[in-house]
Amino acid sequence: MNDAPAQPQTIVTAGILVIGDEILSGRTKDKNIGYIAEYLTAIGVDLREVRVVPDVEEEIVAALNALRHKYTYVFTTGGIGPTHDDITADCVAKAFGVPIDYDPRAVALLQQRFKGPDLNEARMRMTRIPQGADLVTNKVSLAPGFWIGNVIVMAGVPNIMQAMLDEVGPKLKTGQQMLSESVRADAREGDIGTELGEIAKQHPDVSIGSYPFFDDKTGPNTNVVVRARDAEKLAAAKTAVEQMLREVKANLKAG
Amino acid sequence: MNDAPAQPQTIVTAGILVIGDEILSGRTKDKNIGYIAEYLTAIGVDLREVRVVPDVEEEIVAALNALRHKYTYVFTTGGIGPTHDDITADCVAKAFGVPIDYDPRAVALLQQRFKGPDLNEARMRMTRIPQGADLVTNKVSLAPGFWIGNVIVMAGVPNIMQAMLDEVGPKLKTGQQMLSESVRADAREGDIGTELGEIAKQHPDVSIGSYPFFDDKTGPNTNVVVRARDAEKLAAAKTAVEQMLREVKANLKAG
Repeated sequence: MNDAPAQPQTIVTAGILVIGDEILSGRTKDKNIGYIAEYLTAIGVDLREVRVVPDVEEEIVAALNALRHKYTYVFTTGGIGPTHDDITADCVAKAFGVPIDYDPRAVALLQQRFKGPDLNEARMRMTRIPQGADLVTNKVSLAPGFWIGNVIVMAGVPNIMQAMLDEVGPKLKTGQQMLSESVRADAREGDIGTELGEIAKQHPDVSIGSYPFFDDKTGPNTNVVVRARDAEKLAAAKTAVEQMLREVKANLKAG
Repeated sequence: MNDAPAQPQTIVTAGILVIGDEILSGRTKDKNIGYIAEYLTAIGVDLREVRVVPDVEEEIVAALNALRHKYTYVFTTGGIGPTHDDITADCVAKAFGVPIDYDPRAVALLQQRFKGPDLNEARMRMTRIPQGADLVTNKVSLAPGFWIGNVIVMAGVPNIMQAMLDEVGPKLKTGQQMLSESVRADAREGDIGTELGEIAKQHPDVSIGSYPFFDDKTGPNTNVVVRARDAEKLAAAKTAVEQMLREVKANLKAG
């Protein structure tokens, strides 16, 4: 039970756009989607969609425009390094219809690490920032991401991306957090599916998911996950699931 | 050098549609995208796009229709289990505008494992297959996926998905395989970015990617990956990259 007064249920949504041929070829296994998903869920932002696109301007611009008009925030990863295939910043500028140029703030950041000829043409590429964007700094690489409109542009390298997410996280609008409870069913998914569907119908404000797994000692099993923004509704649905599990298992034993 | 005669460069493309709230909440970390990506690359199918959507009918149908009209194949994962949130088969039927019903072939498969009352309403859900689809069998769970038009519907559980992919793989049209060579630069990405861009311009049929990594012993480093369908063009680009690396490193030492 929760004694806090009911709050208006603000919903803040997000999409992720992963940019990079290396993810689509399978050479690099993405580790950012799951990390960002968990991060956003924890702070009360609903991740609604992810897209992965190649290093191709038209694809990046089209996907970015589709996502940014649909969700409160879009997080991009990848394509902001110093090489020719790093075209994310230019694509974001194009999507927003704004100019892009070397940004003095970004140049100053890179000058902390790269002196004289070391701040060459390739590295200067990392200081190209669309007009009107705020920088998203990170202490790992110094090369910044940026935030323009509702789009947050981050690096693809996981530890740099994570540092950038820590930087923007506290500045994000957040909604009421999705609460979640997991119940180990000790039953096979197919033995409880119909009953779980009934509970889902009776608890329309609660999302009920069912995830089969294999326990090496006891065999096929299921985790039931109930999710809701309202603590009381969540508790009621969890109780219904537990009650149902007791009944199903009693019936299975009897039958 | 490759003495095989030049083949027409057939390009076979694919998209992946990952279906499931649990991926977007971060509760489950997707392991299928990277696996399918690597599999398709190995057999000569170009993965061009991935989308992850929630267990919401309109989102699944819209994404499926967007992808299936754009690529040779679409692979879906997730949402074909026995519970109320498993709505992929119904969404695929809706996207194709065909009826869906219990499929006698799928029922026969499940009857091998589930006898009498064990083949309950929930498990029967897994035998709902859109009209006109071929089954994609798997020996792990017996519950089948299916193949309709250019869409291949697979389970979300990785070992079941992998068994299904092994089943359909040999039946796919495949294009000329993308060949790939990786060169360890022993240089920081920013030191070779400009030169790499020049090589990319001079080798338009070769895709050149650059992936920074950190070597615990020697520090920041870079892998350069050259990719092409033509072995000679690939070899020429690789030679150019190696030559460039020697020159850049000689200059860095001299400077």
